[in-house]
Amino acid sequence: MTGEHAFIHALRAIATDPAARRLADDAAVLRIGGEALVLTMDTVVESVHYLPDDPPQDVAWKLVAVNVSDLSAKGATPVGCLYSHALGDAAWDAAFLAGLDVACRRFAIPLLGGDTVRMPEGAPRSFSLTALGTGQQGCPVPSRTAAQAGDRVWVSGTIGDAGLGLRAALGTIGGNEGDTAALVARYRRPIPEPRLGVALAPLVHAMMDVSDGLLVDASRMAEASGVCIALDIGTVPLSSALVTLVGEDREARLDAMTAGDDYELLFTAPPEHTARIIEAAATLDRQVTAIGTVEGGSGLSLTQEAAAVPLPERLGYQH
Amino acid sequence: MTGEHAFIHALRAIATDPAARRLADDAAVLRIGGEALVLTMDTVVESVHYLPDDPPQDVAWKLVAVNVSDLSAKGATPVGCLYSHALGDAAWDAAFLAGLDVACRRFAIPLLGGDTVRMPEGAPRSFSLTALGTGQQGCPVPSRTAAQAGDRVWVSGTIGDAGLGLRAALGTIGGNEGDTAALVARYRRPIPEPRLGVALAPLVHAMMDVSDGLLVDASRMAEASGVCIALDIGTVPLSSALVTLVGEDREARLDAMTAGDDYELLFTAPPEHTARIIEAAATLDRQVTAIGTVEGGSGLSLTQEAAAVPLPERLGYQH
Repeated sequence: MTGEHAFIHALRAIATDPAARRLADDAAVLRIGGEALVLTMDTVVESVHYLPDDPPQDVAWKLVAVNVSDLSAKGATPVGCLYSHALGDAAWDAAFLAGLDVACRRFAIPLLGGDTVRMPEGAPRSFSLTALGTGQQGCPVPSRTAAQAGDRVWVSGTIGDAGLGLRAALGTIGGNEGDTAALVARYRRPIPEPRLGVALAPLVHAMMDVSDGLLVDASRMAEASGVCIALDIGTVPLSSALVTLVGEDREARLDAMTAGDDYELLFTAPPEHTARIIEAAATLDRQVTAIGTVEGGSGLSLTQEAAAVPLPERLGYQH
Repeated sequence: MTGEHAFIHALRAIATDPAARRLADDAAVLRIGGEALVLTMDTVVESVHYLPDDPPQDVAWKLVAVNVSDLSAKGATPVGCLYSHALGDAAWDAAFLAGLDVACRRFAIPLLGGDTVRMPEGAPRSFSLTALGTGQQGCPVPSRTAAQAGDRVWVSGTIGDAGLGLRAALGTIGGNEGDTAALVARYRRPIPEPRLGVALAPLVHAMMDVSDGLLVDASRMAEASGVCIALDIGTVPLSSALVTLVGEDREARLDAMTAGDDYELLFTAPPEHTARIIEAAATLDRQVTAIGTVEGGSGLSLTQEAAAVPLPERLGYQH
């Protein structure tokens, strides 16, 4: 057990309130006045989660978006956020704030409060954001724990773009400018759609967002639900930009499925909800794709054209 | 205007939702399902808000307590918190977590979620906590803006202890061990009492917590309410430990009133509520003291034995 694992283990031992969902879900769910209040908090650290020369507007956008993605995965409508800002260079801070404003408007999540702190000279800065949303009346807030044998497994959008976008931003992969720009945008400015999460919530058994890599997140859902998730890697949706740059052979697919930062929805639902799921996504102009099934057993299993595919050693970003 | 002032000004321009209270109150107040949800977020930074060799249990306690103090000042009952932890030395982190657990239990504010992040090697760490509370049904959540001419001005507890405790911790003031230990404890482990805030909320016009210094916080309330707050400095409550160490002459009193970290309640109320206020505090074994009056005009005015006292140059921690 690493130090971080031991720490999170200790953290779980003190977060015993049912609203904490054992710190094993995307968000906490607290009952307030008959409403389900969905709460999530994410922090980004300079030189860990973003680079000092990343555009500050994008850092702010991503801070808002990753939290909104958690709300979306719980079928919650954003109602507000608080954030903590570590002051630094004034021009950088002003640009960050402009990006924050744009993102809060885009995701309809008003800024309600927070804190502003000074940092020791030269220290890397960090920004924390707490996002609040409300679940739907009469519909349980989806968790990671309710996938059932017989469910279809679905994913929204396309997978692997942000991971490839990071490589493009770092200059470790090249291609035509239009494709690389699209992928870098997926990395820097994820666009979760809470209305999709809201529309799906009554139709799904389990739902979470894909943030650390499709495979590692699917394995977490399988473990939380006590089931096996069987994915047909040939059906995993890839963008045309990704396919143009790296193709779509098995290696490219496994790379995409183990890259992080997708901020798409992973969910399971009974087969009889298929038509309603497709319709809900189409109404919002979003793509959803069935990529596998839930089975008895445990863990992940991968196939391609009915042949078993061994799991890669690394499933995504483990932490 | 400093960079920080300019930044906060820009922040206010984007936080236009009424729930944000113009970022000028202790907390945001959001209506959820007929309840008033009170939200606050504070961050502590290593070498800025605490020293690397401060006991980690105390750093965690204070992080919880300063947020609970904001809830108390809004008459809110704590319902939960989320926090973000910057990982560092494993033993320090474990001790911090133990302190967090103790504080969350003491203040009945369950830990519901948050985030854990790695830091670049050697970087100072920071910890953010978002606290949630619920206001009382049928009672507006007190703000800083509602002090009225004719009100009495009150403060809970004793003033200046934590500031002197910091000096004792830094070794810049000495005294007998019992007194300095009591003052250092006031600095490291403030004990806000949300039940006092709850009991006072229906009785007050304006209420806030004293965190940056009694004078600066009173001047903020005066400004927010568009009134003058007139304080009789001879009535400001001082602890016996403080009086033993530094006496209670005018200089000692002004020092106490401009020291930070009290985490007491400052409130104004109509004189006819006096008996109920005293009773509410007595029931909770807490001290409250009338220290002045609200008058027409603006700003602060100080007297001692009916003679005017000039305002000190520094009213507290300005930021």
